[in-house]
Amino acid sequence: MTLAPPLAVSLGDPAGIAPEVIVEAWARRGAEALPVFFVVGGAGVLRAAAAARGLDVPVTLIGAPEHAATAFGTGLPVLGDEDCAPTFGSPDEAGARLALHSLARATDLALSGVAGAIVTGPIAKSRLATVGFTQPGQTEFLADACGTPRDDAVMMLAGPSLRTVPLTVHEPLASVPGLVTRPLVERKARIVARALARDFGLPAARIAITGLNPHSGEDGRMGTEDRDVIAPAIAALQAQGLAVSGPHPADALFAAHARRGYDVALCMYHDQALIPIKTLDFDQGVNVTLGLPIVRTSPDHGTAFAIAGRGVASAGAMIAALRMAGECAARRAEVRA
Amino acid sequence: MTLAPPLAVSLGDPAGIAPEVIVEAWARRGAEALPVFFVVGGAGVLRAAAAARGLDVPVTLIGAPEHAATAFGTGLPVLGDEDCAPTFGSPDEAGARLALHSLARATDLALSGVAGAIVTGPIAKSRLATVGFTQPGQTEFLADACGTPRDDAVMMLAGPSLRTVPLTVHEPLASVPGLVTRPLVERKARIVARALARDFGLPAARIAITGLNPHSGEDGRMGTEDRDVIAPAIAALQAQGLAVSGPHPADALFAAHARRGYDVALCMYHDQALIPIKTLDFDQGVNVTLGLPIVRTSPDHGTAFAIAGRGVASAGAMIAALRMAGECAARRAEVRA
Repeated sequence: MTLAPPLAVSLGDPAGIAPEVIVEAWARRGAEALPVFFVVGGAGVLRAAAAARGLDVPVTLIGAPEHAATAFGTGLPVLGDEDCAPTFGSPDEAGARLALHSLARATDLALSGVAGAIVTGPIAKSRLATVGFTQPGQTEFLADACGTPRDDAVMMLAGPSLRTVPLTVHEPLASVPGLVTRPLVERKARIVARALARDFGLPAARIAITGLNPHSGEDGRMGTEDRDVIAPAIAALQAQGLAVSGPHPADALFAAHARRGYDVALCMYHDQALIPIKTLDFDQGVNVTLGLPIVRTSPDHGTAFAIAGRGVASAGAMIAALRMAGECAARRAEVRA
Repeated sequence: MTLAPPLAVSLGDPAGIAPEVIVEAWARRGAEALPVFFVVGGAGVLRAAAAARGLDVPVTLIGAPEHAATAFGTGLPVLGDEDCAPTFGSPDEAGARLALHSLARATDLALSGVAGAIVTGPIAKSRLATVGFTQPGQTEFLADACGTPRDDAVMMLAGPSLRTVPLTVHEPLASVPGLVTRPLVERKARIVARALARDFGLPAARIAITGLNPHSGEDGRMGTEDRDVIAPAIAALQAQGLAVSGPHPADALFAAHARRGYDVALCMYHDQALIPIKTLDFDQGVNVTLGLPIVRTSPDHGTAFAIAGRGVASAGAMIAALRMAGECAARRAEVRA
């Protein structure tokens, strides 16, 4: 396998669980066969997180990403000396500033190619907004930084059991039916197909598209969007040669036998996509942003201030996010090699 | 345990999978420790289903429900001589008539108390409509037969992993937000609490109520129903002494650690309730109707005409439905004894 550049990890909110799951992931790098990564900033934060978790994790300051590979074997590589002294569980403005700077620099490093991917630690959006973060979330920040239309930055949730993509995300349920349009279904399905081919080794990914209504509307008896909007979009995508199917009644689509029939489920709204992945893969869910020029993954959890610094947060999702970012970055590096 | 009367099983559509999963359940009655049951009508249908499945199941005609217990050890008891000659996979009018009569008589037997419960085989509603079935489904038929307001007949899905109740059921998604009202949430929660106390041995059932919107609306930022409708309903129910909680973001509510916190989840709409149960317990899901004067369960699957008579349909849900009906009936019998 071609050696990809190291992964850049943004620190996330220093008062949340990101620092402790990052140090835990480094401590398990051997057993989990993790790719080389470095954290942007927060050396003191990471030392404090390791201490709080009872882990012996040396932190090694590096001057450039290309030093990460050498440092990685004996210490957690940290790039840059910006830092703060957080109280775990109590976010503050200094921490928000550090989180924002870490995210911005890690993004730049991925965009310039010296980092193979960015893995983002969770932030508290409302807190970052007080220090100049103007986007609704990290995904939109990354889209803007990459010059990608925000609608083309597509969230995929991936776990050991399945992958799902919500067509609409943080919308009131009452708004969803009006937002499900044929162009949107087609555009997002094409982005998903391209990304799974490029980054996941699935050149003809089978995309199962859900219905919006119960039983996919039963031919219009329980809602017409499935018949009038989603089905024509599927027909158009099939005509373009994509391996799409549906509209599938969402309730039965995530049973074990049904999951064998597709590589990714394109769902119409937040809970339809997130209930199955969190039900099956709660501690191992990865949030991947498709459609960007860079590889970006994130553990599918928040800052979890309530349990930060207590040593109980699972590092499973961070480990899965690092592994997936490494695999995607390696695929891109192979194509370039 | 007090001996409850035998369970009355309605045949369902003779051309579907109900007959074969019924005979399979009888064949496994010992290993599965199933309660005594009898089928209303369809002796020839059941013999054909057993033959098609390669099972040696003698069918014993009985003249009255009280003979079921004696007959059950050596043959599948069938009450009444109405019958037909189905082609599995090809429903016809004679079969629809038999299904309707079986359902009606089984209901009467449960209402009169000579049957401890009714377990309904799946029907094809559109076909039954051609022979005089005027209700949208079996649940409404049973509510009407029992003199219960249809809204008070509450569907619960129950499996080994969890129980869920959809507040709204077969409604277009666009109609759901308008149907989620404070009185409806309160009324259905009270029916659920009473039924779990009476029939499931849970005198203080913990009811987790979901939000309607992503993340339960984040205090109104993504929809207001959670804050303005559901939260006040929960407060009112708590003031009445019910062990309800929420509104819980639905995406995280069905992870293993979250499921330990409640006995039943009251969800706002069809897919929110059915995705988690079908994802976790696909072949063992039971549809229980709460709020009726009789005990009614059903396997949570349809007629499955496409696979009927081929011997591949899982009997797991029928077995689970029989077992659950027996347990509920036994609890009612104990109270009466």
